[in-house]
Amino acid sequence: MIKITLPDGAVKEFESGVTAFDVAKSISEGLAKKVLAADINGEVWDATRPINNDASLKLLTWDDAGGKSTFWHSSAHLMAEAVEAAFPGVKFWVGPAIEKGFYYDMDLGDRKISEEDLIVLEKKMQELAKQNNKYIRKDVPKAEALKYFTEKGDEYKLDLISNLNDGEITFYTQGGFTDLCRGPHIPSTGAIKAIKLTSIAGAYWKGDEKNKQLTRIYGVTFPNQKELDEYVLMMEEAKKRDHRKLGKELGIYTMDDNVGPGLILWMPNGTVIIEELEKLAKETEKEAGYKRVVTPHIAKESMYLTSGHLPYYADSMFPPMEMDGEKYYLRAMNCPHHHKIFDAEQRSYKDLPLRIAEYGTCYRYEQSGELFGLMRVRCLHMNDAHIYCSKEDFAQEFKAVNAMYLKYFKIFGIEKYVMRLSLHDPEKLGQKYVNEPELWLETEELVRNVLIETGVPFIEVKGEGAFYGPKIDVQIWSAIGREFTLATNQVDFAQSRSFKLSFTNQNNQPEIPLIIHRAPLGTHERFIGFLLEHYAGKFPAWLAPLQVKVLPISDKFMDYANTVLQKLIKADIRAEIDDRSEKIGKKIRDTEVAKVPYMLVIGEKEMNDGKVSVRRQGKGDTGVKPVEEFIHEISKEINDRLAD
Amino acid sequence: MIKITLPDGAVKEFESGVTAFDVAKSISEGLAKKVLAADINGEVWDATRPINNDASLKLLTWDDAGGKSTFWHSSAHLMAEAVEAAFPGVKFWVGPAIEKGFYYDMDLGDRKISEEDLIVLEKKMQELAKQNNKYIRKDVPKAEALKYFTEKGDEYKLDLISNLNDGEITFYTQGGFTDLCRGPHIPSTGAIKAIKLTSIAGAYWKGDEKNKQLTRIYGVTFPNQKELDEYVLMMEEAKKRDHRKLGKELGIYTMDDNVGPGLILWMPNGTVIIEELEKLAKETEKEAGYKRVVTPHIAKESMYLTSGHLPYYADSMFPPMEMDGEKYYLRAMNCPHHHKIFDAEQRSYKDLPLRIAEYGTCYRYEQSGELFGLMRVRCLHMNDAHIYCSKEDFAQEFKAVNAMYLKYFKIFGIEKYVMRLSLHDPEKLGQKYVNEPELWLETEELVRNVLIETGVPFIEVKGEGAFYGPKIDVQIWSAIGREFTLATNQVDFAQSRSFKLSFTNQNNQPEIPLIIHRAPLGTHERFIGFLLEHYAGKFPAWLAPLQVKVLPISDKFMDYANTVLQKLIKADIRAEIDDRSEKIGKKIRDTEVAKVPYMLVIGEKEMNDGKVSVRRQGKGDTGVKPVEEFIHEISKEINDRLAD
Repeated sequence: MIKITLPDGAVKEFESGVTAFDVAKSISEGLAKKVLAADINGEVWDATRPINNDASLKLLTWDDAGGKSTFWHSSAHLMAEAVEAAFPGVKFWVGPAIEKGFYYDMDLGDRKISEEDLIVLEKKMQELAKQNNKYIRKDVPKAEALKYFTEKGDEYKLDLISNLNDGEITFYTQGGFTDLCRGPHIPSTGAIKAIKLTSIAGAYWKGDEKNKQLTRIYGVTFPNQKELDEYVLMMEEAKKRDHRKLGKELGIYTMDDNVGPGLILWMPNGTVIIEELEKLAKETEKEAGYKRVVTPHIAKESMYLTSGHLPYYADSMFPPMEMDGEKYYLRAMNCPHHHKIFDAEQRSYKDLPLRIAEYGTCYRYEQSGELFGLMRVRCLHMNDAHIYCSKEDFAQEFKAVNAMYLKYFKIFGIEKYVMRLSLHDPEKLGQKYVNEPELWLETEELVRNVLIETGVPFIEVKGEGAFYGPKIDVQIWSAIGREFTLATNQVDFAQSRSFKLSFTNQNNQPEIPLIIHRAPLGTHERFIGFLLEHYAGKFPAWLAPLQVKVLPISDKFMDYANTVLQKLIKADIRAEIDDRSEKIGKKIRDTEVAKVPYMLVIGEKEMNDGKVSVRRQGKGDTGVKPVEEFIHEISKEINDRLAD
Repeated sequence: MIKITLPDGAVKEFESGVTAFDVAKSISEGLAKKVLAADINGEVWDATRPINNDASLKLLTWDDAGGKSTFWHSSAHLMAEAVEAAFPGVKFWVGPAIEKGFYYDMDLGDRKISEEDLIVLEKKMQELAKQNNKYIRKDVPKAEALKYFTEKGDEYKLDLISNLNDGEITFYTQGGFTDLCRGPHIPSTGAIKAIKLTSIAGAYWKGDEKNKQLTRIYGVTFPNQKELDEYVLMMEEAKKRDHRKLGKELGIYTMDDNVGPGLILWMPNGTVIIEELEKLAKETEKEAGYKRVVTPHIAKESMYLTSGHLPYYADSMFPPMEMDGEKYYLRAMNCPHHHKIFDAEQRSYKDLPLRIAEYGTCYRYEQSGELFGLMRVRCLHMNDAHIYCSKEDFAQEFKAVNAMYLKYFKIFGIEKYVMRLSLHDPEKLGQKYVNEPELWLETEELVRNVLIETGVPFIEVKGEGAFYGPKIDVQIWSAIGREFTLATNQVDFAQSRSFKLSFTNQNNQPEIPLIIHRAPLGTHERFIGFLLEHYAGKFPAWLAPLQVKVLPISDKFMDYANTVLQKLIKADIRAEIDDRSEKIGKKIRDTEVAKVPYMLVIGEKEMNDGKVSVRRQGKGDTGVKPVEEFIHEISKEINDRLAD
């Protein structure tokens, strides 16, 4: 008999060779139907793989990340089976699950695949899925594995096998398709109910452009049609809201070949949004007792050797500049500069908590192929701050940071979010994690309690903390349900040691501060990218680059329109006049397209009555009123930062 | 007879061989007494040197830069004469006039010179000056010059002579001292009435640290004792107001070895000043119709090849970073990025003038020996903007820029300033200057007219324009009379050509815009350095990092003091409370030292009456009043940006 420990701590005894599926069945048949895989001692396994030793076990369903990825990886095999049926002789490279779905890279020889083929393949996959074939795992000696793929003539799989040791090679077979694979897989193909092959792309073998270009097919699958329909709808909406498309149309940002890839040039409209975000952050941080600093974007190599970013983080940094016999680096993070500000003066407990904020610009090297609009860039403007505090103050400070996140979520109408609390792994103390077991448990407990107290939804992940302390990744969902990583929030008890930071405590003794790294608005780049999708470019009035457009019906009303404009500008409202000799219908349409929140239509009656006719973007006419009344209303909307 | 053209255009005839001194005497004896040198055809000459051809002539007195530098260069010779008398066998390298005074580098062998020696030397110089010895110019054949200094045993002068051609070597002699020198000099030593040797320093021969270290003596002289006394007083005051000393004491900025020399870390107090300056600039620029952008600090080599900064400006740029097979440079100026913003959209005359502003950070390489506090740094935050306009709009735009300068001068209480209009040299068109003779004359005339119309004091300097257009350097004087270069203002008709910028004009034709480069507040670094000296650290309330300190007389009044503090903070006033258990006298003294503009003293009476006792920094008690009244007054002072 072996002991199986369940997530709630309950221990059950089973015969050796029991499977996760059996365990699920012992709980309920309904649960067993939903099981896709299982977490066995921290590793994802087939639900049907025999367990021969004592183990901790967590059943994984569609609701778990591990369940989804297993489902999609199995879908990749299903797609390969369909492709092989349609294109005999096809050779396969790798076919992993990705963030949303899966792909498979393949060599189709001289054949080309088209969008029409995808529809045929989808049908074939549906047919194969309905056969409900089991995914069967088999250990294979290396010689046998080599023989199989030599006979099949697949040099790509042979290349993979050549890097594996005898005894660690497994094949998976479902229906008529066998693949070299370490797994895990779902029990059988029947769970795959809804299938969509989304696109075809080229991909160099091993990512090296000197190698042959393979064909990559992307797809996504679901356990029911409803989820696929929702997904397709969301993707269509996301396409309309694509931040790169809107970014160009609305004059938010541009890029230039002579400046370089991943380096954003913020156009005037984008800069208005940046400045509004900074204003919000500065107000919020001032109220929360932050002090602001300005520091350079470069530092000597020695600073990054102290911080430990060199050599460990060197790949993500820009290459150095050699000057005066020293190496200088563009910073990839602001913390070391802030530590120097902390260290520039003698600090006592009276100065703490010291909260140092900066809209710091950082430079990070991303592979040019990884760059993507505002989402993956090389120059990042961060709403950054570091809080230096005593252990006693930590919980309160962390709570305040949390409250700031929630305040922002409310302002931006972010309704769905989750915090991912990444903890250390006690077995890797001293290797992957600073060897301070008590401090780890203590800070983790503090962070956990704050999350529980404030009622923030969160999940815990063991073994994903930063080197220097527990970490919270903040995930948010846009209005159309797409997930974004907004920011990371870190507790740090290592850097104050390496930078020899200390303060004099109340007992007149030197003490090492704890540091909280926080950036609730993340980077301008990513956040504005998110907001473009979230609002579909229709920014609330306080964020809109242009808040009001004055539309005179004809040139006759230009003088009065100008009077109105001046009143708006005087009230600090971003307004313009449409002085073109166009029909009012066209003026309204163009302003709608430009997504300006308010239009003030001005004609004979408005002029005579000293009023304006107000149109709200996307809502149409909202009535005629005195201009002062409109200014009063929009000013309130702007100052309160109301959502639409 | 030869023709002498005077500055007012008058032409006078003289015998060939006439001297500037003779010309002055022909005008008035009084004038002749004041003549120190003369500008002959754009070159500074001895007033006593014979003129043998037609020439344009401007007499130079102490009021002219050329007069002063001649005076100081002659003073360096006078000092050398005194040194030679006191230290026989001394060997001399070079002894130029500098911005304020002069120095001479010398080899004293094994002997050392002390502060006491300087006093002895000053006395000797005074004695020699009274002898009123003439400075006598003599052309010397190279062989004779070599013989003279070989016999004297001065290898430094021999080194200088070795680089000169026969026929271009002159000696100057006054009293018993003869020096190799191309001049010019003042007529005789008697004009030097007041002498101060200011300091001794070491200086490597030819500035190369592998060479021998020479002794450098600095001095300054004046035509009367009064000016020297004023100068000494100013220097003493400047020492007290040293921006490096105040910068540290007031927590404005710091530097750190691990970050690097010349890289300023702005502390919280300095950042408040930066943000107030930015706020002022943004308000001013918004009103003037500027649009703001944000651009990265780096760009590819290709951008700086287009702009022409590479290779010509490479020495002043940071070394490149090599990435993805490309070279990237930290920017030394913002203009190319702004040109890219201009170029990112189709532009028509309706979009112009387009005024693009950014608080852009630039990086410039300065030799580490040249770095000096906030005045010479490697990372510069510029209040930058570029105005793209048609030729028709140019004068109006330039006038508006000028008006902005004057507005700032008024706000900062800068009473003395001058604009230095640098023009092209027609003889160097196509070499040093873009070959657009008409455009040069046209823009120079436009700029000159604006300066005349607005009544700004300015001087014209031929042959000092930028490559791409006329340039204005703005010189300002601090409250204690020290001169600073604030900013440069440039007209540019070349970069829009190299960047192929154009707009569609009213005739539907492509047209190349003119560009104005302007930065009225210069850089944060230099301007805050200036302001520290200008205000002696006593910033006006609107700029002061801390505006009000609340000083309870004892702990009994802490609650009331806190009520007052909360009211101040609510009114957006930067305020703190001194909650130490110190005597009120000490609290006041400490707050005075910290240069906080206002102190609110709170005791029994104030508490009972709901009032505060107001002290103004440096002025003492200004009366008891209700806190609301004080808030009203200081808010007005802050919002109007009133000087003290």
